[in-house]
Amino acid sequence: MASRLPSAGFSITVRVSVTADPYAIGRLTTAVGEAGAIVTALDVVDSDHVRVVADITADTADAGHADQVVAALRELEGVEVRKVSDRTFLLHLGGKIEVTPKVSLRNRDELSRAYTPGVARVCLAIAENPADARRLTIKRNTVAVVTDGSAVLGLGNIGPYAAMPVMEGKAALFKRFAGVDAWPVVLDTQDTEEIIKIVKAIAPAYGGINLEDIAAPRCFEIEERLRGMLDIPVFHDDQHGTAICVLAALTNALRVVGKQISDVTVVVSGAGAAGTAIMKLLLRQGVGDVIAYDRNGALHRGMPGLNTSHQWLVENTNRANYSGDLPGAIKGADVFIGVSAPNLLVGADIAQMAEKAIVFALANPDPEVDPREARQYAAVVATGRSDQPNQINNVLAFPGVFRGLLDAGASQFTEEMALAAAQAIADVVGAEKVNASVIVPSVFDPKVAPAVAAAVAAVAKAAGAPRLDSSAS
Amino acid sequence: MASRLPSAGFSITVRVSVTADPYAIGRLTTAVGEAGAIVTALDVVDSDHVRVVADITADTADAGHADQVVAALRELEGVEVRKVSDRTFLLHLGGKIEVTPKVSLRNRDELSRAYTPGVARVCLAIAENPADARRLTIKRNTVAVVTDGSAVLGLGNIGPYAAMPVMEGKAALFKRFAGVDAWPVVLDTQDTEEIIKIVKAIAPAYGGINLEDIAAPRCFEIEERLRGMLDIPVFHDDQHGTAICVLAALTNALRVVGKQISDVTVVVSGAGAAGTAIMKLLLRQGVGDVIAYDRNGALHRGMPGLNTSHQWLVENTNRANYSGDLPGAIKGADVFIGVSAPNLLVGADIAQMAEKAIVFALANPDPEVDPREARQYAAVVATGRSDQPNQINNVLAFPGVFRGLLDAGASQFTEEMALAAAQAIADVVGAEKVNASVIVPSVFDPKVAPAVAAAVAAVAKAAGAPRLDSSAS
Repeated sequence: MASRLPSAGFSITVRVSVTADPYAIGRLTTAVGEAGAIVTALDVVDSDHVRVVADITADTADAGHADQVVAALRELEGVEVRKVSDRTFLLHLGGKIEVTPKVSLRNRDELSRAYTPGVARVCLAIAENPADARRLTIKRNTVAVVTDGSAVLGLGNIGPYAAMPVMEGKAALFKRFAGVDAWPVVLDTQDTEEIIKIVKAIAPAYGGINLEDIAAPRCFEIEERLRGMLDIPVFHDDQHGTAICVLAALTNALRVVGKQISDVTVVVSGAGAAGTAIMKLLLRQGVGDVIAYDRNGALHRGMPGLNTSHQWLVENTNRANYSGDLPGAIKGADVFIGVSAPNLLVGADIAQMAEKAIVFALANPDPEVDPREARQYAAVVATGRSDQPNQINNVLAFPGVFRGLLDAGASQFTEEMALAAAQAIADVVGAEKVNASVIVPSVFDPKVAPAVAAAVAAVAKAAGAPRLDSSAS
Repeated sequence: MASRLPSAGFSITVRVSVTADPYAIGRLTTAVGEAGAIVTALDVVDSDHVRVVADITADTADAGHADQVVAALRELEGVEVRKVSDRTFLLHLGGKIEVTPKVSLRNRDELSRAYTPGVARVCLAIAENPADARRLTIKRNTVAVVTDGSAVLGLGNIGPYAAMPVMEGKAALFKRFAGVDAWPVVLDTQDTEEIIKIVKAIAPAYGGINLEDIAAPRCFEIEERLRGMLDIPVFHDDQHGTAICVLAALTNALRVVGKQISDVTVVVSGAGAAGTAIMKLLLRQGVGDVIAYDRNGALHRGMPGLNTSHQWLVENTNRANYSGDLPGAIKGADVFIGVSAPNLLVGADIAQMAEKAIVFALANPDPEVDPREARQYAAVVATGRSDQPNQINNVLAFPGVFRGLLDAGASQFTEEMALAAAQAIADVVGAEKVNASVIVPSVFDPKVAPAVAAAVAAVAKAAGAPRLDSSAS
């Protein structure tokens, strides 16, 4: 989308002093509105016969737009801008999570049970039977959110310090949506071997590892090797969380258009962590065919310089071995899934897809095709944006997935669990309520996380996942 | 002490069913008392004409004693023991800390500020200026409690899983006593190089590192090398926390006996992490002389097979190069400090010390000399036990030390800070209130942590410790 819409993520509060007259406030709000921002609050904080001091809060489109809005206020006659506060930055001051004791420590007796000397017996019990760690420590409910800061959001390799606000946010979401205690582990190294060693070493405190925003293809090796080493589940949200949500959305989109997954051809733009995981899960679910795109074009057999992960893809996708461009690939395709870059397609390309086409343009904040254009030609359109219908957001999956893994005491995350989680998310909407604008539930639907958790835990238990706390009384 | 006293750390609750008669409850509590336990609560949970069901809670001395108490109840006629609960274990179920969001996430707007898309701007701000991490992330208030589980309490090398209850307890204490967010980092490795690499890699999220229960001499190298690498303070509580508390207690004990530190000779039993740090701090404070003992005897020049740390000690202590036994060393000494093993000395040894002797017998739970015996000959006696006067407990130091370090944005912990912290703790008691039974404040005295924090922060600021968040608005 060429012009972004104002959003709460770019909300500012401007304190202005303005000449006291009956039109003062009106002039302010009109100026903000004319500058393209949306006024969401106005508070007069002080006034006398001469001046009014007011706080105007408004959603803007981005940092540049916010500056324009402030400039528009400054230009008004009799208006003095005193302070501009960015509500997003205010909210981040001091970080977004804290560590809270669950035990009271009011007196000597309580201290002697929670700490020395009483704690020694609990230590000895775990030393004798390490599986008791799931019963007597935070391991039972705690997940590490691990990143090296190499692929944070769409921002790229910004490093561990700058990655912290995302990891803290993720931890906050884990608790808010599924009661999971999650802790940010941001690593000041991008060496595959070091990352593996570190995660292995810190694992005893945790009941699961959530890898986050680690660049491909390094993320694949880190995940695979850790899975082989650890007795707790390892889940890379950028891969599996995204794949679960996309499969959930596709399940319901196919209900809307009345097609079977085994009959459809899917074109996926983006063959990094997310795209690869999406394709693997779709293949596992029996999709008709897939064509994968990365920056070098359609992945096809005979292509030079493929990495291990792309080599696997060319062997398992693209039956006709198509090697042309992206608009050519989606011609006649049933489904387009983009997890790549903005503005790769236009409405005319979408018009060339099969009847009742499905378009998931998930690049953020600017999708692969303008969803308003796509909607003119496709039957179902979804994006990653919160200001459009059908937002595909990983928050639908990861809290419930880990809730289920922890509840089951699972030792690994499996593809069966991913399929079950996707089905659970799709079913929260319900076959009877599904329509072209509602293929996924709201992230705030309180039924989502428990449904996902139950589905994942059921698979874990059916597979006989070792309940390490089976000795718990 | 030969026989341990009942304590809340070994509190049990026994559910019994007993024949309903007027003497039923009396028989129960009498039996518990005769078995040497202390009844702290009794609740009748159900009763009819025939039976009474009651929960009896009692402090016992240790696990074996608890079993004896239960056996005594079982032997009573008409009594059926239904269930024995250990209150310490009950308190530990599910762990002792949790991660709590500080931001509300009730709706889409709040989500878009705390997480995507709003969070991206905060990430970019930190990417441009990494020092902003202290302002916009949890780093400002967060400490890692790092262990390899190699020297946990007096339990030895019990590993990372079994160390968790102590580290969680420590984290709970950090919050309770100083509002510091602390997180347990238990490492499944005891390799010095790996531990150093891991702590360096995880450091970006933290404003300080608290090393805990890592065996000597490895702990010295880990601490020293990390200090050279990191821009946040590294503090080994077993060393510096203990040294601060001992110096604080000694400062007031010397007030009680009217001696100057420069005039006294101190014998220290235990030349591991704690003992070494205590001696270094005493030397820094200008103590008259010190003789150090380890398992092999008095550390003296010419002794074979000394490690680096002990080599430093023999060069800086024991002026007369004494090489005899411990009772011989304390003959005429003013101060004995034990951080070693139980029952090394008897009252007759203490009787040989100088007039107005000071004895700190800190081995836990059984001191180097029975404090009741020592008190017959020494002017001031302290232990690590909560059931004796003058408990020297690290809780007096570490919460306030880190509060001060974080408040000042300090980049390192220094010996000057340790001296200031010790003085602050001593001064909380106040020269006029000090007496032989009150040389340290209660760990629950709310003045302690703020006083320590202010003292540490003042040294940090005077030394021009870089306030990394000096750009904070």
